[in-house]
Order: sequence, then structure tokens, then C-alpha cells
Amino acid sequence: MYLKDLDEDTVVELIARTLIFKPGLGEYLFYPEDARDILPRAPRILFSIDAYSVSSLKLPWRSYSDVGWASITGAISDIIAKGGIPHACMIALGLQPTLREEELEELLRGFREAADHYGVRIIGGDTNTASDSWIAISIIGFTTARIPPSRSGLKPGDYVIVTGVYGAMGYVAVKGIEEASHLDWVVKYTKRPQTRVELAYVIENNYKYISATMDVSDGLSYTLYTMSRLSGHGIVLESPPLVYSELYEYCKGDESCLVEYSTQGGEEYGVVIGVKSEYLRLVEKDLEYFNIPYRVVGRVTSQQGLFFRGKELSVYRYDQLRGWYKLRAS
Amino acid sequence: MYLKDLDEDTVVELIARTLIFKPGLGEYLFYPEDARDILPRAPRILFSIDAYSVSSLKLPWRSYSDVGWASITGAISDIIAKGGIPHACMIALGLQPTLREEELEELLRGFREAADHYGVRIIGGDTNTASDSWIAISIIGFTTARIPPSRSGLKPGDYVIVTGVYGAMGYVAVKGIEEASHLDWVVKYTKRPQTRVELAYVIENNYKYISATMDVSDGLSYTLYTMSRLSGHGIVLESPPLVYSELYEYCKGDESCLVEYSTQGGEEYGVVIGVKSEYLRLVEKDLEYFNIPYRVVGRVTSQQGLFFRGKELSVYRYDQLRGWYKLRAS
Repeated sequence: MYLKDLDEDTVVELIARTLIFKPGLGEYLFYPEDARDILPRAPRILFSIDAYSVSSLKLPWRSYSDVGWASITGAISDIIAKGGIPHACMIALGLQPTLREEELEELLRGFREAADHYGVRIIGGDTNTASDSWIAISIIGFTTARIPPSRSGLKPGDYVIVTGVYGAMGYVAVKGIEEASHLDWVVKYTKRPQTRVELAYVIENNYKYISATMDVSDGLSYTLYTMSRLSGHGIVLESPPLVYSELYEYCKGDESCLVEYSTQGGEEYGVVIGVKSEYLRLVEKDLEYFNIPYRVVGRVTSQQGLFFRGKELSVYRYDQLRGWYKLRAS
Repeated sequence: MYLKDLDEDTVVELIARTLIFKPGLGEYLFYPEDARDILPRAPRILFSIDAYSVSSLKLPWRSYSDVGWASITGAISDIIAKGGIPHACMIALGLQPTLREEELEELLRGFREAADHYGVRIIGGDTNTASDSWIAISIIGFTTARIPPSRSGLKPGDYVIVTGVYGAMGYVAVKGIEEASHLDWVVKYTKRPQTRVELAYVIENNYKYISATMDVSDGLSYTLYTMSRLSGHGIVLESPPLVYSELYEYCKGDESCLVEYSTQGGEEYGVVIGVKSEYLRLVEKDLEYFNIPYRVVGRVTSQQGLFFRGKELSVYRYDQLRGWYKLRAS
């Protein structure tokens, strides 16, 4: 069965049955209402929207459920990076009439698995036809941080922490999808990108000691470059971030190889955190408490730019309109 | 210039410059942050998402700015119908590379004009490429209502109020776009659909007296039918809703003609309100205070169905996957 053989109500019912979470205590509105009511869980709301074309998320080794998972992960990452606990989301879908009913079910299963894993409630959505399927996810989170960290607060002397493990999407970016598809470890680590909700606790609890944050959705070099540019300072990288052991073997431990593969990429939902130097240990302790993989990769410097071993680092990013390109040559 | 000739940053900068509202008092995050922080303005949050393909909104007589306007109006309507004051929104866009830069600017102007008109802040978004342009708008509103009205609370004896003025989109639905395009009044009243934010005050202030609400986004007959079905009761229509004087002339005052054209349609962002019979005057007084056009169109009955002058009314709706169709024949 293709979606074009079904009517809208049948499709919407399928989506609602699979996805929609019930109202919490003290909440009333429920499917098929268009709007839902939520009680605030902390003094400050965080709000974001993230959208994707399904084809851009659908690496050949990803199933539709992986696509659903990846899109939820990417959407909540924006909230987590600002110290917000993602609480509820709304999902709008544009669906091709040529999509199979099983493919839609797979996609929904991926949304649901991610929502259960991260503890985010999917509370509503909207369905449309589209010539190429797309997904838009809007998230509400809550934070106790009196001042959520921006991207632009880095000050000279701050430490730069990078959470997460890198190198798999970098391999895809450098070598291309075809070559990457032959490596089991690249496939394994890029199938379902991960983030950690606990990171939001670390950021909200330490907001006074954290000068800036940004998630790594468009590649680590782009994130570091953007934070340094917006802050008006530079970053000196002293070490690559944590990488998969398979990348380490592939690079034979060569540092510039490790830096190349770990700073390109995308969809790696770690967070770059600038920390005031005197509070580094406090933040590290909290990261360790929650078992969040991280490395202190360098420090902020007054000289603008992004440096590694005395040279400027190349900056890459993924451009929705033009694909992967080099933003600044080294 | 087409969008395909521009890079993502240029397009995003254009969108941000045109659309993005600054943080309010006590708020911090601002463009280019992915997430924004909001302080709650009432004890209960209302949250929704609404999405559209641009082509489905683009009646031949609508400019791109009208499309932007219509999409904001539709999105906030869901919040208003539940007694929420729409406060802030995020807009995700899928843009065809073949869209002209001027067309994008028009669309953005329409968003901005609607946001200014309704007092809603556009605080962020996301941009993607798409083979057919689409828009997804997520809204946060706030309500003082302890229990926001659902669609399903109608009880026998309740009065049924319909706000708004009808007949223009009904003419489009009945006669088709081509014939409708020759009538000045149809073009005028469907170019920029309207809703009224003040309606949210009436609903939140009177939530104890209101048994059910739903907006008229998919046509009045569909709204009445859905509310009666979900409530497990029927509605006896005693009068058509308010209609444009031009429709009245066209129908030569014939009641069944008026009912036909006013109950078909869509994108008519009035609200159907069920009111406990003893409190009708209180709700009417508030509607009059805010100058909101309305009519008491009938009452709720224990017999299931939707009736007018002793006969069951035909129910029409717009189906995203199949177009306009008759849901229940009379």
C-alpha cells in the first residue's frame, strides 16, 4: 500500500496511534486537538524548530526508523546545548504519496524510539503531502539557568570542552558515502546519531561558569569557527576531541589525520562548551558524574581564528543549498 | 536571482534580518542561536505546529506575501481556539531552488505583516531546500484558563456560537477556483484570511461557561460535524452563520443557499464555541465588547448528527491526500 491509496484520516490516525503521548498531570488537551497544553516545569522555556528533507537524512545504510531517530536527536540537541531539558515536541510531516505504508510506520517507530530513549513527549503534529518527504520538529524544553549560554561568550583564557566521540561522519564527509558504506564502524556509528540529555543538567547547573555553548550539528570545525567568530576571539586547538578507536587505528595515531577526520562531519550531537578557566574542574566533575564522554581540546585566545599546531585549521560545513564545501582554507 | 544562485548563509541572513524579533525583557538568546528562551506569561502553555505546501495556499490571486500571511493566521488560530494568546513562533521553510529572491522576500514580508498585526513574535526558524516549497510554523501561546476547552465537551442544550463571516471560501469550494477568480468579493475576502486574537481572551475568561471549541480551518460543516461526533451528541442548526453581504445577494436571501456556501470552505479562522445555556449572555457580552462578529447558529441535541430544518446537513472537508470531498451526504 502506498500513502496515495489511503485517505488523510487513515494516515493521521496511524500517526496519532503510534506517536502521540497522553496529557501529563494537570494537562487536558489530547489528540485530535490541534494545540496541546503544557504546564511549565522550570522558570524559563526553551523553544526551537528543526527541519530536514528525508532524503538528506537517508544515508543508504539508514532505515526509515533511523531517519526518524536522527531527526529527533538533531532537534533536541539545540535545546540541550542551551541547558534545556527537552520536554515535548510537535512533528509536522510532508509525505510523498509514493511512500509505502510500511516506510511511514518505520519512520514513526524511529520517532517513538528516540522519544522514549530521550524522555521527550511527542504531543502532536500536522500532516501534508509533499513531492519529497520532509520533517519539521519543534521542541519545548525548560531550564533553570537564569542566563542560558549563547554561542558568542568565549573570552581569552577560557577552556574549550568538546563532548561526544568523533570521526565517523568525518569519514563520510572526507571519503564520500560510497566508500564510507564499506566500513562497518562508520555505518554503525552514523546509523543513529546520539546526544545526551544529562548534558543539559551540566549546562544549566554550571551556567555561571560556562561562557558559551553550541552543538556540533554542522561539523566540529564549523562549530568552533562560528563560536570564535561570534565571540570575536580565536581558539587554539591543543588536542583532537575523543575519536572512535577505529579512526585512531585508521590514522595510525597521526594527530593531523585525527584532527582532519574529527573536525569535518556533521550530525554529531556533542556540544562545544567554553568554560571560565578557574571553574574547569567543576564542569569536568559534572560531566564525569553523568558519564558524558568529553575532552578539553584547547583554549580561547585573543588572536582571531582557529589554530592547531601554529597553523589555521580548515573549516568545512554542510550547506543546504550547495552541499559540503570548504568555508575557509587552511 | 534564484535561490539556487545564493548560498545558504545569504538566504538565512535575509530571512533573519526580515523576520526575527529581538529578545524580550529578561530573555537572552537571539539569532543566530538555534533555540530561543522565553519567560512564561501565564500559568499554562499552549503549543502547536501547522504546516502547508506553498502551492496549496497559493490561490491564483494570492501573492507570496498573502501566502505568508495566511500561514501565520492558520497557525495562531489553533492556539486562539483553545483560549491561548499566541506569543511567539518558529518558522521552518523548505524552499525550492527555483524560487526567486523577490518571491522569498514577499513571503517573508507576509509573515512579518501578520506577526505585527497579531502581535506574535517570530523568534527563529530553520531553512531547507525542497522540490516544492513548504512552510511549518510552530506556536507557543499562554492561557490563564485552568481547563482549556476541548472539541468534545458539547452537551445537549448548549448553544452553538460561530464567530467570523462566511461564504467566500465556500464559493471557491463549490464553484472552483477558476469561476471564483472572476468575483471581486471572493478574491478580496480570501486573499488574506483573518482571525481575532481577542477571541482568546473571551475563551480563557469564560472557560467555565464554554463546553467546547474548535476553529474552522477545514470548513464549517466539518468543524460542526467533528465537534458533534467527538462529543457524542448532535447539533441542530437554526440559522446560517454571518455571511458576506455579497453572498446574501447572490443567494437572494435563500436560506439553504446561504447554508450551503457558508458551511463549505476552509481557511476561515472563526471558532465554533459551545456555551452552557445559562451563560450565553455572558459570552455574547464579551464577544460584543471586543467587536468580534458572531452568530448563535443553533443548539446541541442528544440525537447524533448535524441537522438543518429537519434534514441532515452534508459534510465536506479538504483532504490533504485526496482534495475536496464529501464526507457525509445529506
